[in-house]
Amino acid sequence: MSDTFPEGLQEFLHQLNDDMHAAADWGTPAGYIPELAAVDPAQFAISVAMADGRTISAGQHDKRFSIQSVSKVFTLAAALGRIGDALWARVGREPSGTAFNSIALLEQERGRPRNPFINAGAIVTTDALLDGRQPRDALAELIQFIRAAAEDSDIHIDKHVAASEEATGHRNAALAHYLYSFDNLQNDPDLTLGTYMHQCAIAMTTDQLASAGRMLSGLEGAPRLISARRARRINALMMTCGHYDGSGDFAYRVGLPGKSGVGGGILMIAPGKASIAVWSPGLNHYGNSKAGTEAAHRLANFTGWSVFGT
Amino acid sequence: MSDTFPEGLQEFLHQLNDDMHAAADWGTPAGYIPELAAVDPAQFAISVAMADGRTISAGQHDKRFSIQSVSKVFTLAAALGRIGDALWARVGREPSGTAFNSIALLEQERGRPRNPFINAGAIVTTDALLDGRQPRDALAELIQFIRAAAEDSDIHIDKHVAASEEATGHRNAALAHYLYSFDNLQNDPDLTLGTYMHQCAIAMTTDQLASAGRMLSGLEGAPRLISARRARRINALMMTCGHYDGSGDFAYRVGLPGKSGVGGGILMIAPGKASIAVWSPGLNHYGNSKAGTEAAHRLANFTGWSVFGT
Amino acid sequence: MSDTFPEGLQEFLHQLNDDMHAAADWGTPAGYIPELAAVDPAQFAISVAMADGRTISAGQHDKRFSIQSVSKVFTLAAALGRIGDALWARVGREPSGTAFNSIALLEQERGRPRNPFINAGAIVTTDALLDGRQPRDALAELIQFIRAAAEDSDIHIDKHVAASEEATGHRNAALAHYLYSFDNLQNDPDLTLGTYMHQCAIAMTTDQLASAGRMLSGLEGAPRLISARRARRINALMMTCGHYDGSGDFAYRVGLPGKSGVGGGILMIAPGKASIAVWSPGLNHYGNSKAGTEAAHRLANFTGWSVFGT
Amino acid sequence: MSDTFPEGLQEFLHQLNDDMHAAADWGTPAGYIPELAAVDPAQFAISVAMADGRTISAGQHDKRFSIQSVSKVFTLAAALGRIGDALWARVGREPSGTAFNSIALLEQERGRPRNPFINAGAIVTTDALLDGRQPRDALAELIQFIRAAAEDSDIHIDKHVAASEEATGHRNAALAHYLYSFDNLQNDPDLTLGTYMHQCAIAMTTDQLASAGRMLSGLEGAPRLISARRARRINALMMTCGHYDGSGDFAYRVGLPGKSGVGGGILMIAPGKASIAVWSPGLNHYGNSKAGTEAAHRLANFTGWSVFGT
Repeated sequence: MSDTFPEGLQEFLHQLNDDMHAAADWGTPAGYIPELAAVDPAQFAISVAMADGRTISAGQHDKRFSIQSVSKVFTLAAALGRIGDALWARVGREPSGTAFNSIALLEQERGRPRNPFINAGAIVTTDALLDGRQPRDALAELIQFIRAAAEDSDIHIDKHVAASEEATGHRNAALAHYLYSFDNLQNDPDLTLGTYMHQCAIAMTTDQLASAGRMLSGLEGAPRLISARRARRINALMMTCGHYDGSGDFAYRVGLPGKSGVGGGILMIAPGKASIAVWSPGLNHYGNSKAGTEAAHRLANFTGWSVFGT
Repeated sequence: MSDTFPEGLQEFLHQLNDDMHAAADWGTPAGYIPELAAVDPAQFAISVAMADGRTISAGQHDKRFSIQSVSKVFTLAAALGRIGDALWARVGREPSGTAFNSIALLEQERGRPRNPFINAGAIVTTDALLDGRQPRDALAELIQFIRAAAEDSDIHIDKHVAASEEATGHRNAALAHYLYSFDNLQNDPDLTLGTYMHQCAIAMTTDQLASAGRMLSGLEGAPRLISARRARRINALMMTCGHYDGSGDFAYRVGLPGKSGVGGGILMIAPGKASIAVWSPGLNHYGNSKAGTEAAHRLANFTGWSVFGT
Repeated sequence: MSDTFPEGLQEFLHQLNDDMHAAADWGTPAGYIPELAAVDPAQFAISVAMADGRTISAGQHDKRFSIQSVSKVFTLAAALGRIGDALWARVGREPSGTAFNSIALLEQERGRPRNPFINAGAIVTTDALLDGRQPRDALAELIQFIRAAAEDSDIHIDKHVAASEEATGHRNAALAHYLYSFDNLQNDPDLTLGTYMHQCAIAMTTDQLASAGRMLSGLEGAPRLISARRARRINALMMTCGHYDGSGDFAYRVGLPGKSGVGGGILMIAPGKASIAVWSPGLNHYGNSKAGTEAAHRLANFTGWSVFGT
Repeated sequence: MSDTFPEGLQEFLHQLNDDMHAAADWGTPAGYIPELAAVDPAQFAISVAMADGRTISAGQHDKRFSIQSVSKVFTLAAALGRIGDALWARVGREPSGTAFNSIALLEQERGRPRNPFINAGAIVTTDALLDGRQPRDALAELIQFIRAAAEDSDIHIDKHVAASEEATGHRNAALAHYLYSFDNLQNDPDLTLGTYMHQCAIAMTTDQLASAGRMLSGLEGAPRLISARRARRINALMMTCGHYDGSGDFAYRVGLPGKSGVGGGILMIAPGKASIAVWSPGLNHYGNSKAGTEAAHRLANFTGWSVFGT
């Protein structure tokens, strides 16, 4: 695959970082989690883990940020590893057409969330991973899974962010109790919710996130944590559902499977070519990183990595 | 790209045809268009237009069927050619999460359809293509466009099917009048609706449809009717929105951009590798070809053509 | 019932008329029907048909206005007279919680409108009245019914308003085609729609409308066109559904069954006491007469006619 | 008002009780609260508190049952007494058109429940009554209010039912957390929820409930706990919203303001004439007492007490 290596990528990434700072079109950090609301939006980082084993980065690629909903990708992979396709009896695989925290659709579909990347679906996925254990045990498994994917043991939960979420996460609490009322949680809602909020509070650098994403990219030399078939399928879910009600636009403009988080991170996969992480904490109106989405668009144009053609 | 040529494809396609007939798991033809309801469901055809210029087929690949909503791909390409990205002011690019003929979402979004592949969005796209002309002129342009893409002049509208739809298409008439009430039709609703119903009644063989799809595949030697960038973007829309509320599942199981029609046809694109058409008139509960979806799944497994990795 | 006669009612009505003109808080005439949009909003009329046979009025009580949706009360009474309770298989009796022209609920409930006073339900009711006849025959029956109720033969359809609606009624056309697609229209949608639009264009004065409403009031000496039981039931529907998504507020503030129209008219029934018509063409945000609603509120306070207690 | 006294009412009520037992068309007790699910459905009671001071009853009129949502009427009256019309900034007055425990509408209307009688609205009303106090203080006030209305100090909360609800009320917990996320709860959600569930667990006999309802009936000699105007307005809300998505049908068939509870109780008001309580624990598909609704219908026919005419 060396023929797919884009010449000048390092220079491009530095230029991208400069351009983002020059444009200063940062959006607004997520307001509903106090610890995140205080973050300076004028920050940017991008890391690309390549097929040849290198990671090329620019900007604040060593700075940890809260991965938030990007964690849903890893939780999904870990939960599928634990209970297999039985998960799909409890959660669907279709784009929701609604906001990430919508509860209306859940009523209409009688407690079966549309996909594992909206909050309701991720809570069910977390419940499946929890599987009767103590939250600390499930979280330990998840953290170990991510560390193994990234081949980096220095990945942790940010306890301040977790505490900040627990105090404010009433929308998620509503979802959890609602799911429980439809028998689609198997653990105590407070335990599942606590686990969910802690996993969202995992902090990573873009270097770490890009490394961890290699397991979905089919990159040679990456740790083999899941089968190639499961990786393809998770990529498919990221493409159709990874950016909430902005998923179609991301597919249209960027053409790569991706998963965003309200902490401003986006993980993208260019199958067979690279795993990419970008971060900038200001959000657009969909709740996805504003500068991050723009950078993803430019990177896709530069590299020609769209899965939809050259 | 000759290295991507899958050995044994011709044999595989014959076997696939045999398997489909042996399984006899055909689903039910669309009931609401009288001309289609009478079709025998026990029919199957598949054609693959390859990068090396060949088309490999099996089953009834010379038999014409009503392409129905597959036409939306060509209408979109033609309408974008005519009015460019101005179209996106009138129609969105997000999966709808609802059935193909839903009107509820249209009320919520005040007359701007979610994407060009649900009926409401296709009616707006047709209206953009009509653009003040007589229906026959717009239809002539569209037919010419498809003939040029397929390099085959023997492609026509089936007037019996068109007449059958006009008599029964009250759900579409509701959508057209509703769109008009929000000023999102620029032609008389009856003219737009008539044009829409005629385009849905285009009849093609799988050989013709696979040939016509080459313009989206980046295949060498294919007619250059649209830019590579536009082709990628239409592929992205097919991936996220091409199978209505079954789009996520198709992406998950097949991993290729595709567009289905209630006539039982599916057009799929393997970027850089092939354009594929499959047909079987019985439908699954999403309104997509049942045997066609199963065949798509098996073909993707055999070829490894999923855009989401190998 | 002479003990219920409110002393000083004539003076109160004159004062009410003066107050409305002094406040000049008229709202905005309906914009979507050209003939109505041009009406001067600074107009007011009120008429009260009493148990003792008198009609007491103030303001422009001799001026004809377009009764619009108030006609739905008479169409319902006439349709029930024609087909009886079989109507309720086709239309419900519950408040809709949505706007008068909503189509989303109709999709959810598979073509059975929530009640006969939202547009979709009134179109079905009109279809039941049409009953295979020519529109002119059904309209003649309806006009005769209203004339008999008002004991006044000088009541007509305003053909300019009818024509104005036909040119602009695409939202209603959408509803009609949608209903037809669920087999809940039995006549050609265009015939039903034309009948519906003509009945909405009936022009009456408040004196005429108050007189016509006596059939619902149980007033002695009123023409007996429907049974007491049916009158009670129509009143109940007016109470729960007569003002679209403002019905609850009207019940709360006024406490009388009422039916509004976008022409600015409101018919109210004080069972056993009076039939009241008020008119002012400017509308509030629910699409009900703004000054008319305010006047209804004040009249209810003055008379103590609320059905909910003294 | 002695002229409104219906002759033979006592005999009619005994006959009604016999008829209900003979028909044995009881419906099914509410399944989701374990303590209620175990109740024998073959039970019936009816009590009518008259203008002349008598209470006439039949069936098990001395048996206590869980009033459940009927309590919402008293909570509303008490909360309006405490914070006045400021409550209406937090909750609407329109029929919801949806089930009693729907959360979808709440999302659409951004946390402001449609009316105080659906669960979400009642939770907000309870929160207003709680008003920073301890649950036991708010509950003591409410119980005192009901005792004063009924002039009977022997009214209590059934702690078994309250405990049963707390264990199973995850749908209500979802609503409470959801409301809190929109800043429409001012107390800790668990405190508001606990208060709400305890108020629903108040147990009363039909004699007590009919007596307590006199404050809404304008009956002479009844305790004056709220103004006549407020009583009328609460009656209006009961008429338009008192039976969830069966409110329109109850108004149509019975013609009296009423409020039902899933314990099988219904409180009805015949303004100026009587306050009526009926109980039978089996429910119809709206979640209202099946035999109770039928009895209400027959009583209204016998007495001619419909507010909509004679």
